[in-house]
Amino acid sequence: MNEKITIRHGDGGLHTSRLIHDIFYRHFENAILTGYQDAAIFAMEAGRLAFTTDGFVVKPIFFSGGDIGKLAVSGTINDLTAAGAIPLYLSAGFVIEEGFEMEKLDQIASSMSRACKMTGVKIVTGDTKVVEKGLVDGVYINTSGIGRVHECFRPRQIISGDEIILTGSIAEHGTAILLERYDLGLQSDIKSDCGPLSEIIPALGDYIKHVKLMRDPTRGGLATALCEISESHHIGALIEEEKLKIRPAVGAVHELLGTDPLYFASEGRMILITEKGCGTEIVKVLKCLESCRDAEQIGTFNKAYNKVCLRTAIGGERILSMLENQMISRIC
Amino acid sequence: MNEKITIRHGDGGLHTSRLIHDIFYRHFENAILTGYQDAAIFAMEAGRLAFTTDGFVVKPIFFSGGDIGKLAVSGTINDLTAAGAIPLYLSAGFVIEEGFEMEKLDQIASSMSRACKMTGVKIVTGDTKVVEKGLVDGVYINTSGIGRVHECFRPRQIISGDEIILTGSIAEHGTAILLERYDLGLQSDIKSDCGPLSEIIPALGDYIKHVKLMRDPTRGGLATALCEISESHHIGALIEEEKLKIRPAVGAVHELLGTDPLYFASEGRMILITEKGCGTEIVKVLKCLESCRDAEQIGTFNKAYNKVCLRTAIGGERILSMLENQMISRIC
Repeated sequence: MNEKITIRHGDGGLHTSRLIHDIFYRHFENAILTGYQDAAIFAMEAGRLAFTTDGFVVKPIFFSGGDIGKLAVSGTINDLTAAGAIPLYLSAGFVIEEGFEMEKLDQIASSMSRACKMTGVKIVTGDTKVVEKGLVDGVYINTSGIGRVHECFRPRQIISGDEIILTGSIAEHGTAILLERYDLGLQSDIKSDCGPLSEIIPALGDYIKHVKLMRDPTRGGLATALCEISESHHIGALIEEEKLKIRPAVGAVHELLGTDPLYFASEGRMILITEKGCGTEIVKVLKCLESCRDAEQIGTFNKAYNKVCLRTAIGGERILSMLENQMISRIC
Repeated sequence: MNEKITIRHGDGGLHTSRLIHDIFYRHFENAILTGYQDAAIFAMEAGRLAFTTDGFVVKPIFFSGGDIGKLAVSGTINDLTAAGAIPLYLSAGFVIEEGFEMEKLDQIASSMSRACKMTGVKIVTGDTKVVEKGLVDGVYINTSGIGRVHECFRPRQIISGDEIILTGSIAEHGTAILLERYDLGLQSDIKSDCGPLSEIIPALGDYIKHVKLMRDPTRGGLATALCEISESHHIGALIEEEKLKIRPAVGAVHELLGTDPLYFASEGRMILITEKGCGTEIVKVLKCLESCRDAEQIGTFNKAYNKVCLRTAIGGERILSMLENQMISRIC
């Protein structure tokens, strides 16, 4: 299959139709997708829905631990999970560069399909555009998603004493992309942590009533996510550095480069803010999940602070602020 | 406001947050958008939903009769309308070129907001990415949307005798873009017809039970849309050329260029396929709407044909096929 994408694949005519059937319908096949043109139609019970959208422009498109397709499906699933929702339906919009190899597009669609099958999510509607060579960097993908919010999930104001859980080690996605992007002369087995976290919601079950907020620490990393939560809830937090898990290879890269892993993205981790006293029980539940086995309570919100503060391993305290200058762009 | 978009506006940190608040929250302001991060959460009654996605890469970004923002919101609203749905909630995903003028982004967001207000639709979730100069042509937008399908709308098999309605004149959007794109030395007042058609669903009311399918003739134009319907329902159709409305200025351009307006996009027109005998009544309802005042029954499905056939004004017959080679790309 040496075929390449041409401008005609985006003109809405015969070639577009063939591309959709040969690649997208083949990988994403389901009755809702192929049922009605222009829009998917499906029945929904009454309740709260979550709706989210994400554009993916990651460079490179294929990286250690995943590709733009796996990242796009996982990212949108994780945003729905962060809203306390079971993800149900996704859309997939492609902007493809003229000359892009059909085989790569096939691989990307295959990754998307695998991530969907793992999680029981369906891609039910899509769109394909093609632009001239050079005006998109290979392919950009938008995935939007709809999920059903767990009836016991009640996002609410964070107060002093609320506990902060992180479901695993940090900065792996951002670091993997950094290593792929620049020829740093480093040998490493660092893989992106990118993957779907939707198993969290059914695992928590009614325990989710003790969760006040969830957030996946993607662009800007753990520090930026915590700062945003702190600012919007007008309360500081204390994070214990020694509770943060950083894989040795990841730590070594950042030590060498003088960069701060707290500002590097994860794409398969979740922050959960729970009511005071509920953290231990919820960590126990999370640790049973393959995707969260390194879950840990990393700190607490504390009215004695008005910012996010990191207590370092040697007992000092350092104020964390939002990311101001990232050294690497297009990590998702 | 001479500020320009920088890579930092896409890194997920402080600058991204400011961009979102200063431009997007300001124009799209609503409680669902600003309520919960990562995903919008809202209550929904039981029923059928429609869900659709569309990427917009139109060139130029600003054109006679609209811009990429108006086009994006209208396009997604019209796809929901085509599924018999009242549009409710949209997402907006932006991929922006480094160096893009903040003022243009503000204008685009303002157009989107206007189209939303006209139709009662809300943009409830969004995403912003920035890529290096040259790797996107200004800005690409993805809009996905959710609507509630009218309870009386039942998409079903088309049979011989079913009637074909078109809500207005053809090819205006594609022709306007063609004129903008190439310096053809033509003076004209051709404007894109781009605009939302959501008023169709409440206007039809229970009459919608007589509508079997709707479709907006965008990329590929009226001919391609009719061919796709014909192919998927395995039945031919006869279209009366003299029932098609082509504005004189549009007709003149295509006569001059030797191009066929039947293959040029509309972005504010709808095809409705109705049960036999219902076309006249439905045309009457549609003609009362500002967006559909030139509605007309343009033909019928007919088992005597196995393709879409155009009866020309002088009585000849011409078989229409799907678009094979479009002379202009990136019209939406």
